[in-house]
Amino acid sequence: MNAAIRAVVRTAIYYDIEVVGIREGYNGLIQGNFTKLGARSVSNIINMGGTILKSARSLEFKTKEGRQKAYDNCVAHGIDALVCIGGDGTFTGAQIFGEEFGIKVIGVPGTIDNDIFGTDNTIGYDTALNTAMEAIDKIRDTATSHNRIFFIEVMGRDAGFIALNSGIATGAIDILIPEETDSLEEMFNTFEKAKKRGKNSSIVVVAEGETLATTYELAKKTKEQFPEADIRVTILGHIQRGGAPSCADRVLASKLGYGAVTGLMKGLTNVMAGVRSNHIVYTPIEDAIRKHNEINQELLTISEILAL
Amino acid sequence: MNAAIRAVVRTAIYYDIEVVGIREGYNGLIQGNFTKLGARSVSNIINMGGTILKSARSLEFKTKEGRQKAYDNCVAHGIDALVCIGGDGTFTGAQIFGEEFGIKVIGVPGTIDNDIFGTDNTIGYDTALNTAMEAIDKIRDTATSHNRIFFIEVMGRDAGFIALNSGIATGAIDILIPEETDSLEEMFNTFEKAKKRGKNSSIVVVAEGETLATTYELAKKTKEQFPEADIRVTILGHIQRGGAPSCADRVLASKLGYGAVTGLMKGLTNVMAGVRSNHIVYTPIEDAIRKHNEINQELLTISEILAL
Amino acid sequence: MNAAIRAVVRTAIYYDIEVVGIREGYNGLIQGNFTKLGARSVSNIINMGGTILKSARSLEFKTKEGRQKAYDNCVAHGIDALVCIGGDGTFTGAQIFGEEFGIKVIGVPGTIDNDIFGTDNTIGYDTALNTAMEAIDKIRDTATSHNRIFFIEVMGRDAGFIALNSGIATGAIDILIPEETDSLEEMFNTFEKAKKRGKNSSIVVVAEGETLATTYELAKKTKEQFPEADIRVTILGHIQRGGAPSCADRVLASKLGYGAVTGLMKGLTNVMAGVRSNHIVYTPIEDAIRKHNEINQELLTISEILAL
Amino acid sequence: MNAAIRAVVRTAIYYDIEVVGIREGYNGLIQGNFTKLGARSVSNIINMGGTILKSARSLEFKTKEGRQKAYDNCVAHGIDALVCIGGDGTFTGAQIFGEEFGIKVIGVPGTIDNDIFGTDNTIGYDTALNTAMEAIDKIRDTATSHNRIFFIEVMGRDAGFIALNSGIATGAIDILIPEETDSLEEMFNTFEKAKKRGKNSSIVVVAEGETLATTYELAKKTKEQFPEADIRVTILGHIQRGGAPSCADRVLASKLGYGAVTGLMKGLTNVMAGVRSNHIVYTPIEDAIRKHNEINQELLTISEILAL
Repeated sequence: MNAAIRAVVRTAIYYDIEVVGIREGYNGLIQGNFTKLGARSVSNIINMGGTILKSARSLEFKTKEGRQKAYDNCVAHGIDALVCIGGDGTFTGAQIFGEEFGIKVIGVPGTIDNDIFGTDNTIGYDTALNTAMEAIDKIRDTATSHNRIFFIEVMGRDAGFIALNSGIATGAIDILIPEETDSLEEMFNTFEKAKKRGKNSSIVVVAEGETLATTYELAKKTKEQFPEADIRVTILGHIQRGGAPSCADRVLASKLGYGAVTGLMKGLTNVMAGVRSNHIVYTPIEDAIRKHNEINQELLTISEILAL
Repeated sequence: MNAAIRAVVRTAIYYDIEVVGIREGYNGLIQGNFTKLGARSVSNIINMGGTILKSARSLEFKTKEGRQKAYDNCVAHGIDALVCIGGDGTFTGAQIFGEEFGIKVIGVPGTIDNDIFGTDNTIGYDTALNTAMEAIDKIRDTATSHNRIFFIEVMGRDAGFIALNSGIATGAIDILIPEETDSLEEMFNTFEKAKKRGKNSSIVVVAEGETLATTYELAKKTKEQFPEADIRVTILGHIQRGGAPSCADRVLASKLGYGAVTGLMKGLTNVMAGVRSNHIVYTPIEDAIRKHNEINQELLTISEILAL
Repeated sequence: MNAAIRAVVRTAIYYDIEVVGIREGYNGLIQGNFTKLGARSVSNIINMGGTILKSARSLEFKTKEGRQKAYDNCVAHGIDALVCIGGDGTFTGAQIFGEEFGIKVIGVPGTIDNDIFGTDNTIGYDTALNTAMEAIDKIRDTATSHNRIFFIEVMGRDAGFIALNSGIATGAIDILIPEETDSLEEMFNTFEKAKKRGKNSSIVVVAEGETLATTYELAKKTKEQFPEADIRVTILGHIQRGGAPSCADRVLASKLGYGAVTGLMKGLTNVMAGVRSNHIVYTPIEDAIRKHNEINQELLTISEILAL
Repeated sequence: MNAAIRAVVRTAIYYDIEVVGIREGYNGLIQGNFTKLGARSVSNIINMGGTILKSARSLEFKTKEGRQKAYDNCVAHGIDALVCIGGDGTFTGAQIFGEEFGIKVIGVPGTIDNDIFGTDNTIGYDTALNTAMEAIDKIRDTATSHNRIFFIEVMGRDAGFIALNSGIATGAIDILIPEETDSLEEMFNTFEKAKKRGKNSSIVVVAEGETLATTYELAKKTKEQFPEADIRVTILGHIQRGGAPSCADRVLASKLGYGAVTGLMKGLTNVMAGVRSNHIVYTPIEDAIRKHNEINQELLTISEILAL
């Protein structure tokens, strides 16, 4: 996020556009929690996790009154365009606000879940993937040394991108994601086959949003099926949201921040900036909200074949 | 662990002593699950987490019959000394076995909890500390961006070393460890004072073995006390047990593996090899079991002062 | 590389195709340095840097006689298709060999330089980028604490991808790459402007293949121009080629290894497997050799604007 | 360093002592480049490399006039004690200044070289060790894949601590340090023996201050001796000085910062705070300057045995 903020600020300044930071998202817009941002305000932040502008959910922005206050603040401060970094919720707010008050809005996809249509990757996703992978790599050491089965839950409430990709990257024996209909039988079957092949330890990666059962339930049911197995659960949790961003994420955020400002300068509004095959592209924000990045079916096949 | 195995093997070979690896701990000793180890068998393992010899608990070794089988195996394979890497349980087994059958035993302290008397640090502790610290650093990014309180549970069933040191290293506002009598009132008080100082986000590090309440209960009670606070829990779990070992751990393990073999060569038995102020020292294994590394009281004071 | 080898092996086995590993590249093909690979041979290698099959340059394969020997070995061992992982040199060998003897060949782009046409990224590039970035992040700490200018040379003999992307990711004040015509005057100018903006420390990232001057010469000439400046040089060197691969690299390699085998099964030959916008694509190997991934001009603009 | 600054500041404030930061070392003391430090000024710095107070060499402080100016500044600002973080040079300055003007001085050992007497480790050493080790781990991947000999130079102008410990931790075949008399014959001999044992790739770690020859010369002479060998050189350089500090370093710095302030409060002066076996200890600053931490002879033996 910080890399995107930096890119927006410096691109704007480069083109002589004044730029103001809004703290704590739409709440800050309503409360006028603004901060002047110059080129030096965003020095030495490209390598930091989190966001210097802080983040917060805003219920008030979902009301007409809240948005009116926000608009009044924009007028008062001479703000005529908004760069909104976030996911579905942020974009929905932006779209409504833009349509209601005619203010220019442009979205920048910033969510670790990677489920936003219109971009190969979202900001934060690659970093979260690497964090999840490194954590699973460490757990695998214990799994192997003790002949254990580990159920590891990674983030992804509605989307299995982190689970699928970190699972492939760590040689998980099974990967459970909300996009797929999984069954306990299939999973048990996978364990049986692995045992026959002489595999004594296993990693199962489960997306937070998996619908078959919670990760703890999955472990419990597996224990009932294989009472002799040594089964453990780890919920990776919030470590996936922080940390120094990966190079790909910093470059992506830099491109998108630049793309957002130059897009606005070219008259674009109600769009989201994205990157496809390394090129900056724009997608109607409506599509970015409605459509979703879909799990590549081939990747599911690959994950099964490579877990041999 | 692997670095210690490597050091034992290569030191033994250097001094023309034959060395055999026992897989899966005392279970392997009972079952004769042995593997010949040469200098090349331990190539390229110094940087790997886990243990190439695998690890397992052994109930059978707690019985006289089990230990008799183990001894018979030692005789059959010409084993006249054992290097036992582990913690309290491993050492207790070693001591009894040594006394019962007159076989030479030497302990090497390998546990991430660092609670073993007779050494400044145990093998694995420094790596676990760094892993916990890096995870907490990442979580802190989210805590700061969202003004949240995070309760983070780290390993340490009986000892607060990981909690205390990782807590100091990450600027935790409070650290709860089994060695200290904590109270909810004190903790709430700490939060109040922090709020007054303008601190909006906080990290509380809790040792697994904390007796006041479970980490989830602590979070729940804090929420009851401060209903407006945004409180989250993360249990770091097994990531703390794996991963490429830190430099200090590899060097420590190398010293201890060397110290174990040369100690045996000098006629020592029923001792544990340790390192104090960078020097190899030996402690009666009985003391290593009975006494415990104690939390430095000054460090507790430091942790409170620095959390200002 | 190992992740690609694993993917090739397991995909082949899944489809009941026998697979043989060739050690040390084309040299091994000529010398018959083959190794049978089963599903378990590639266990626990996905997280390792380097390659289990080792790598070597082969002058002999550039001769007709060498290739004849290689072909004879293929016939003798029943090899009817080759998956060739590497860069330009590897592909050129593959193309000639394929045309000469009618053996099926498919390329997999494995080079950290990322200059191969037909894929968004090459295997190893993302890992190298992150390694370079992390190293530069560390150096920046010293630069800032001591008000120094650092010239940091990263890999990229013919291509500036690593320099440009790691430079953007670390907020480099200037980035020198072979694809651009740079001048000392411009660079000095950049330093002057930075000083006026109050910037006391600076990072300049230089691609190995920069044609203006060597990195040491650049530093020397800058010292002549700014005698009071404290200037240092670091050549990152071979750390960029190793290390546990990033998640993106492991997934990319998994896709490409799978794509290579399934491509061969579908009758493709003389192509390179690549990934564009997360999808597997194939490109004539001739194009992969002749054309080159070009530096995105927009990214150059971005790098200048963001260095403000 | 930042962790030590934080500890000094917060401990002082806790005991109601006013604390002022001096920027750029003794230069800042002479120029009155002071900054008021409160508890919040040192928030969120414990995890950062470098130093927020910046660092610089001061020739002027070596003159009586310079020190007089510095003393006048101390008097003007009501400074009656100095905490001096650094190495030999810093301590020498502190000692002279303390004796000349009767101002209280206490040293805190902050240098990555670890050669300061009176403490098990110096601040920054453990972090530098881990950085060097991780870099060598990466290089080893290439060495192994290509059957190469790598000469890797690590920091340590007068001391071989980093070389010896990182060399042991990475399984270096040979380690060259200034404390030992090395010869080319011995080194060549080591290579010969390794080749006979079937070792095709090797890492030699060389301390910056090695007196036998420069790292490049060593490589050149080895090439002359073994013309068929593929030999490379990497100078790790300044990456060793930065980066997020390790847990051990942060805790050490916290202890020493606390120990410095409480030491001054107890009337100590002309001493250096250190840590031995996890306990805070004080050593006359004169001894800290004159004596040096010595390389453990046993560790040299261990390094040779384990390189088998």
